[in-house]
Amino acid sequence: MRNIKITVQYNGANYCGWQEQPNSPGIQGNIEYAIKEITGEKVKINGSGRTDAGVHALGQVANFKIESQIPVNRIPDALNSKLPKDISIIDAEEVEDEFHARYSAKGKIYKYLVYNSRYRNPILKDISYQVKYDLDFEKMKKEAESLIGTYDFCGFMSSGSSVKDTVRTIKSVKIEKEDDLIVFEFEGNGFLYNMVRILSGTLIDIGRGRITESMEDIIKSQDRSKAGHTAPGHALFLKKVFY
Amino acid sequence: MRNIKITVQYNGANYCGWQEQPNSPGIQGNIEYAIKEITGEKVKINGSGRTDAGVHALGQVANFKIESQIPVNRIPDALNSKLPKDISIIDAEEVEDEFHARYSAKGKIYKYLVYNSRYRNPILKDISYQVKYDLDFEKMKKEAESLIGTYDFCGFMSSGSSVKDTVRTIKSVKIEKEDDLIVFEFEGNGFLYNMVRILSGTLIDIGRGRITESMEDIIKSQDRSKAGHTAPGHALFLKKVFY
Repeated sequence: MRNIKITVQYNGANYCGWQEQPNSPGIQGNIEYAIKEITGEKVKINGSGRTDAGVHALGQVANFKIESQIPVNRIPDALNSKLPKDISIIDAEEVEDEFHARYSAKGKIYKYLVYNSRYRNPILKDISYQVKYDLDFEKMKKEAESLIGTYDFCGFMSSGSSVKDTVRTIKSVKIEKEDDLIVFEFEGNGFLYNMVRILSGTLIDIGRGRITESMEDIIKSQDRSKAGHTAPGHALFLKKVFY
Repeated sequence: MRNIKITVQYNGANYCGWQEQPNSPGIQGNIEYAIKEITGEKVKINGSGRTDAGVHALGQVANFKIESQIPVNRIPDALNSKLPKDISIIDAEEVEDEFHARYSAKGKIYKYLVYNSRYRNPILKDISYQVKYDLDFEKMKKEAESLIGTYDFCGFMSSGSSVKDTVRTIKSVKIEKEDDLIVFEFEGNGFLYNMVRILSGTLIDIGRGRITESMEDIIKSQDRSKAGHTAPGHALFLKKVFY
């Protein structure tokens, strides 16, 4: 069996998320269908992690095992020809048998787009979170620095997760502003359920003065109710997975 | 009469362009409809210039004259409430009687997005021009410098224009690259019909080696057939109008 690692981009707007749901195949299911069409083989693919409904990916990674001898450099075009236009395979490589997109992952980068204006932006409206209140950019930047390090982030996790170990390491947080667009970028060894959306919501709530506690105190409290709101999924991008 | 200047953003995907066409009101017509709904007045608005079918705007400017005493700071929200979601008024101010969005304009900035990859990008596909060939970025950057200055750009104009004076000044050209996205930015005192799309197509043709003549020689030739192809409109953005 060959073990194939693929890199996938998608616009999540029309999907229930990475994983299939009762009435929808999800992004994973669409890719499995395309593999079946190309190779005749019915496979299960492993994603680096699930993304929620509406969430996008610039560099999601998945792997699957096939018998087919299709040359690896033909796999992206072949699968793309069977996929909807809002899913795109941008790379494929053959990897050692042990590689597993989820268990082998060492880290991830997520991006979050905030559109900070009273007025809607017709170009970015479907991929950014419009915040109408004034945001104190320097304050968000300063408080974001406290996120860097290894902490128990259980206060930044939505309920409904079965994860036991809630300690994660955030390696870097970048916050950039160009005109009305603010971009958060979080790099870490892993993220809890909804963690990036809660981190983003907390930074926004700090920026608009709705949360006055320091980020340091919020982390220490380990209390979900002290952190900010869960920012919506349609502005979140899985940018990169490290191995 | 009050003279009102508005700044407009739009996603041009669903429009025949700024101006009305036999079966479509255009962006201009939609805004005129919204003004009528809000003030009861039937006005003609002057845009800084027409944008073609599919072309977007981040900062188109228009003006119109009304009797209505609606406070100027309420105009954006009022008009937006009557406009489709892909058109957004982001600013309004009251200006002197002589101001005319087209005749008073001193310059414009246009942006053009090139997505340089063999594979489609599901996030950017509707607002960028996918070029599958390798592009020599440094060469494009170097040749673009020859565009800066005052020249007769008649070789960079589509036929069908009635303009007599084809001399224009390009003040700056920026070319930036981030991953697979290349962004051109042109600032000038004015642009001929399809000029930005032909400038972009010429830079792309130079970058892929399809055109080997220098930009300097192409400008001097004043020959449309020496310049490159007309890049498509869906990747073009009117960014700013100067007064």
